Amino acid sequence: MKAAVYYGPNKVEVADVPEPQPRPGTVKLKVGFNGICGTDLHEYYAGPIFVPTEPHPLTGQQLPLTMGHEFSGTVTDVGPGVTDFVPGDRVAVEPIYRCGKCAPCRAGTYNICQQIGFHGLMSDGGMAEYTVVPTNMLHRLPDNVSLELGALVEPMSVAYHAATLGEVGPLHTAVIFGAGPIGIGLWFALRGKGLDSVFVSEPSPTRRAAIEALGAKTLDPTQIDVPAFIADHTEGRGADAAFDAAGVAPAIEAATASVGARKPTISVAIYEKPLTTPLLNLVMNESRIQGSLCYTSADFEAVIELMSQGVYDTTGWVTPIGIDDVIDEGFEALHAGTKMKVLVDPAN
Amino acid sequence: MKAAVYYGPNKVEVADVPEPQPRPGTVKLKVGFNGICGTDLHEYYAGPIFVPTEPHPLTGQQLPLTMGHEFSGTVTDVGPGVTDFVPGDRVAVEPIYRCGKCAPCRAGTYNICQQIGFHGLMSDGGMAEYTVVPTNMLHRLPDNVSLELGALVEPMSVAYHAATLGEVGPLHTAVIFGAGPIGIGLWFALRGKGLDSVFVSEPSPTRRAAIEALGAKTLDPTQIDVPAFIADHTEGRGADAAFDAAGVAPAIEAATASVGARKPTISVAIYEKPLTTPLLNLVMNESRIQGSLCYTSADFEAVIELMSQGVYDTTGWVTPIGIDDVIDEGFEALHAGTKMKVLVDPAN
Repeated sequence: MKAAVYYGPNKVEVADVPEPQPRPGTVKLKVGFNGICGTDLHEYYAGPIFVPTEPHPLTGQQLPLTMGHEFSGTVTDVGPGVTDFVPGDRVAVEPIYRCGKCAPCRAGTYNICQQIGFHGLMSDGGMAEYTVVPTNMLHRLPDNVSLELGALVEPMSVAYHAATLGEVGPLHTAVIFGAGPIGIGLWFALRGKGLDSVFVSEPSPTRRAAIEALGAKTLDPTQIDVPAFIADHTEGRGADAAFDAAGVAPAIEAATASVGARKPTISVAIYEKPLTTPLLNLVMNESRIQGSLCYTSADFEAVIELMSQGVYDTTGWVTPIGIDDVIDEGFEALHAGTKMKVLVDPAN
Repeated sequence: MKAAVYYGPNKVEVADVPEPQPRPGTVKLKVGFNGICGTDLHEYYAGPIFVPTEPHPLTGQQLPLTMGHEFSGTVTDVGPGVTDFVPGDRVAVEPIYRCGKCAPCRAGTYNICQQIGFHGLMSDGGMAEYTVVPTNMLHRLPDNVSLELGALVEPMSVAYHAATLGEVGPLHTAVIFGAGPIGIGLWFALRGKGLDSVFVSEPSPTRRAAIEALGAKTLDPTQIDVPAFIADHTEGRGADAAFDAAGVAPAIEAATASVGARKPTISVAIYEKPLTTPLLNLVMNESRIQGSLCYTSADFEAVIELMSQGVYDTTGWVTPIGIDDVIDEGFEALHAGTKMKVLVDPAN
């Protein structure tokens, strides 16, 4: 079968590899779509970062690996002992391998498992015609949720998890910094949580236009003072939550200056280096910066339910491509900023 | 009467000023002791910062002002309408003027009142033989709590408030960065909350020696890797809370690397400039940096109760001086680091 295999920096090749066969407790999936994530770009251009160069303690696998951890698929075969899934089931995959023993795992927050592994980073993943995953990674898709949307459940769950940490509700005001895929996911998540008053700060006109087309209210931080705008909009109280999905110092500065007393700035970005951070903003109104990482199954279920209700829309920001175009129309286009989110169809 | 009057940068003079007389709802206090705070030093060397140069909206006062917001005293006279205090009552003063109308005030967190004023920064304060304060600032001192300890209730409440935001209990492990007066106050507060496992990281041998003499376990961050030590001590879980009472980048870096999953780093420092902050530390274990500012009456009551129980000890870090020595043995000695905490006795 065809698979996009990662061999190391700047080397991903569409190779012919053997089809995997299901082991006990797993299913074989025909992959519907597999998204390319910012983490994949980091691996491609600057890796290996997460991809292990010696056997991973939870998966036993190492470089080279088939990439892809954002995917949907249809069950084609089940391994010994599997009774709760049958061929034909359509699923989104929550790709976390966890140790089950560390303090976070015991507390139910396995998204911060100390040994965490990802299907598609620490094992052969979804950028292939078939992949084999444990049944505890599977979330059934309702009939009205497409496999294309299904491949977006993973990144949308990253954003939904962050939105939940924001502790906001329908009458609150939130401000999102960055309108990339996670910023878009935050906007959908907050709308799904009933918020009407959500502002998206994004300096790129292209990205502003994309999220505006989905219905978002945007702010251009190169033209207006975002904290002053938010203060004015909230009668001086400040935002009930701010979200940094940009990962840059001006966003953190504006976010911490925008949130109100005792309110959170949620960091949902992979910071490549420490940022200059105005901690005095936190002290003066007892606000906080709260980190957010990945998701747990509750986030997957919530996103799938909202997708079923029609909250999510791929118009204008999601592009499906065939697997043979994964370098040019995938990695390179995302790196150049000419596409925002690419879904690879391994069968085309 | 004698008062230490602030006229502007590098100009504090012991002047002869009229005795204030109580207005309705206030009492006249004979000041016992008044501590000099880091904020006072900032005003002296780099102010006016908090001291208003036009009438403050809550106090109507402005430069020049009698300094001093950390003080205890004895009621000598009461204003019209005051029935709950009588001459002879010994009190600690919680020096916050609040608007009572903003969102934080309405939520009971008047420590982050949007118009906040301090007695001794926005009005004539306690570095004088007498001062007049509203009765809602008064907290009675038990007989076994001295006026010297009483003057420390304010800074110890700053630390106690931060300790409470750390959400820790008896079986938890905490790490404090910085062993100045607030670091010492954190150590007492955490001990008062029942914690045995408290470590204080402090690079200065003098400050380490001072807090060790009070019974604290210290770490020298120039010699050991503090996060690694804490990880080892907690079987890899990390600290249940970290406290930055140092206000410098190495402390924030070590604090955020020391706390466990979903645990707080409490910032209780006045950061003169933004610090380089490893936000990725927060993301990777969903921890947070939480700002802490001042105190409310609950903190004052808790500290006074713990003082009454004998938890606090002034040995080795608190020096009383007479008001005529306020520059040389007060501001200058604190600035030079030859004293840690100075209490001014306005009657000597």
